[in-house]
Amino acid sequence: MLKLYYSPGACAIASHIGLEEAGATYEVEKIDLRAGQQRTPEYLAINPAGVTPALATPRGVITQNAAILAYVAQTHPDARLADLDDPFAFARLQAFNGWLASSLHPAIGKALFSRPPLEGPAKDEAIQIALQKYDLAENHLLAGAWVMGADHSMADGYLMVFTRWARQAGLLDLARFPKLNAHLDLVQSRPAVQRVLNAEGLAAV
Amino acid sequence: MLKLYYSPGACAIASHIGLEEAGATYEVEKIDLRAGQQRTPEYLAINPAGVTPALATPRGVITQNAAILAYVAQTHPDARLADLDDPFAFARLQAFNGWLASSLHPAIGKALFSRPPLEGPAKDEAIQIALQKYDLAENHLLAGAWVMGADHSMADGYLMVFTRWARQAGLLDLARFPKLNAHLDLVQSRPAVQRVLNAEGLAAV
Ligand SMILES: N[C@@H](CCC(=O)N[C@@H](CS)C(=O)NCC(=O)O)C(=O)O
Ligand SMILES: N[C@@H](CCC(=O)N[C@@H](CS)C(=O)NCC(=O)O)C(=O)O
Repeated sequence: MLKLYYSPGACAIASHIGLEEAGATYEVEKIDLRAGQQRTPEYLAINPAGVTPALATPRGVITQNAAILAYVAQTHPDARLADLDDPFAFARLQAFNGWLASSLHPAIGKALFSRPPLEGPAKDEAIQIALQKYDLAENHLLAGAWVMGADHSMADGYLMVFTRWARQAGLLDLARFPKLNAHLDLVQSRPAVQRVLNAEGLAAV
Repeated sequence: MLKLYYSPGACAIASHIGLEEAGATYEVEKIDLRAGQQRTPEYLAINPAGVTPALATPRGVITQNAAILAYVAQTHPDARLADLDDPFAFARLQAFNGWLASSLHPAIGKALFSRPPLEGPAKDEAIQIALQKYDLAENHLLAGAWVMGADHSMADGYLMVFTRWARQAGLLDLARFPKLNAHLDLVQSRPAVQRVLNAEGLAAV
């Protein structure tokens, strides 16, 4: 049995959506980041990096949304979460997810969730840097209505994490980001995504 | 024909090593980051994110070291850069590479290469944060002499980027990081790695 460790609304929702879209059999366990549960000895034994998500499998733990998503896609091929037979298409998908993890996530995370919170010019600067990354997605990285073009993939629920945060923070301006806004709405309209939002105690934004 | 856009000593060396270890047929083009060549219209047409590496293939460009490495591994299976038939083993490898890209690289990059450079307490703090990530690799993430345990994989040349930077900056203390030091030496002893260092005009550190 698979078990996903997640924190409501945090980036683990990408893996949660991947599992639900795949029709996987899994359970979930909530880790309360605000209460510091990611740093308890129990959780550090699961993920010594002290972050969510972590996916416990019968063979051991997998961390990192991009790695979990590729694993779920490969082990549930019928769900077609990735083009598994075409290394180039798979690489493009992974490149997008890798960019989310290494570039968009740190940038928007710094702007919105620094501890202690950023204020004044430091916050403004962090927001501007993050918005330039949303510009890159808007103007260059989306291949169509879905991230990869005509078909839904494991990248869509992952992008949604960050467009959701941006919309909640009032940063996802419709004139500047029409494609990202339409993408967020499209992803939130999926039944699997609605089930995950529900399960995490969240609403569409 | 594959073509790798790289900057000497920067993180693209991970993809460069992957290609060389794979015995791939490829050419390279140098992008001078200090001269700002990553922001020329020519390069932005290749990678609109304005960073190296980028791997041009006959079907289009792949970015992100982790995605390039998985692509090279999948298209050169004989090189055994990844366990391609085992989604769990592949996921563990990808999780490690994803951690390098999203956690270790930003942390050490901030400490050493911020523009303008960090100074005083801000630099000290950034270094402490980065060193805690090296601790995590040293104490938890290496499965053996190689990142994945008994066998060399596409993760080893990628980890080397950051242990190399740390050693050059005098941060890879032998008493604190015995495994990382031994790993760096082991990776640098590989003929393919020596060819890549040579090709980039670098020496072992
Ligand atoms: N690149 C990692 C990011 C993991 C991450 O930063 N998770 C955050 C939530 S969005 C976390 O658990 N933070 C807790 C903390 O830093 O204390 C992934 O994709 O899994
Ligand atoms: N996660 C990315 C990181 C790419 C990256 O940040 N590359 C740096 C060199 S280590 C770069 O090109 N920086 C140029 C710049 O920021 O102007 C990857 O793995 O490809």
